[in-house]
Amino acid sequence: MADEALFQFLHNEVIQYVYKSAENGEMENGRCVSKLEHLGFRVGQGLIERFTKDTSRFKDELDVMKFICKDYWTSVFKKQIDNLRTNHQGIYVLQDNKFRLLTQLSSGKQYLEHAPKYLAFACGLVRGGLSNLGVRSIVTAEVSVMPACKFQVMIQKA
Amino acid sequence: MADEALFQFLHNEVIQYVYKSAENGEMENGRCVSKLEHLGFRVGQGLIERFTKDTSRFKDELDVMKFICKDYWTSVFKKQIDNLRTNHQGIYVLQDNKFRLLTQLSSGKQYLEHAPKYLAFACGLVRGGLSNLGVRSIVTAEVSVMPACKFQVMIQKA
Repeated sequence: MADEALFQFLHNEVIQYVYKSAENGEMENGRCVSKLEHLGFRVGQGLIERFTKDTSRFKDELDVMKFICKDYWTSVFKKQIDNLRTNHQGIYVLQDNKFRLLTQLSSGKQYLEHAPKYLAFACGLVRGGLSNLGVRSIVTAEVSVMPACKFQVMIQKA
Repeated sequence: MADEALFQFLHNEVIQYVYKSAENGEMENGRCVSKLEHLGFRVGQGLIERFTKDTSRFKDELDVMKFICKDYWTSVFKKQIDNLRTNHQGIYVLQDNKFRLLTQLSSGKQYLEHAPKYLAFACGLVRGGLSNLGVRSIVTAEVSVMPACKFQVMIQKA
């Protein structure tokens, strides 16, 4: 529990820090989300390397994606992805009905506009994890009703 | 274990990020350590609030300091402080013979010059924790032989 709190507090402070840098004119505002995403990407690369140390080889892309939704998500966010859908043409939608980094925000519409800040790092975590498993992707997220959210993964073919 | 890795990887990336901002001229180099320390301060404030939720009142300053060395340190860094010394005039020295955030660096002298980066956040954690327990302080750290380090806490009387 301590480590979970440690991560969550640090994650919150990093968000504040990145956005504050933007306010102070040290960085353009639009770059904040991509900075956070990049931090997540690097962390995801590290994590997946550790988590897959003893797993057997993945069969295919869908197999990788299932690993992300189950093992990876559970390790990082304490629960599985609730729903995984795909169009079988390289687009996957991962739905989390109670996303851990949003549960600390009040639900309702009041803070809906701030949700993207709290999802950017997680998008990076997914992209970084996939990347180290050999799957290049673009990951975006959207929230309609807090604390549920959807991550959309678009596979980038080589 | 996953959360511990998550924190450590994020902590590393935050260090890289802050120092990279300095390189790009978005910030003066000297401010990096104090930025990291400030992040730690804020996280420490949050953590101590959570950790002391159910503890009884502290008797005095030394009692607070023992709590930091035992319970707080164990929660965050997985082990107690190995040695606590004080001059009974407001200076405390906390020695950790195997500091968790340094064990990932190679021991020996090769990376000694990089050690301060990896201690700034921890200094802030201590200062923030103490601050929320009503003890104002200045916290510095030094490394002589990796991965051992000493944190010096100077109490600031009101």
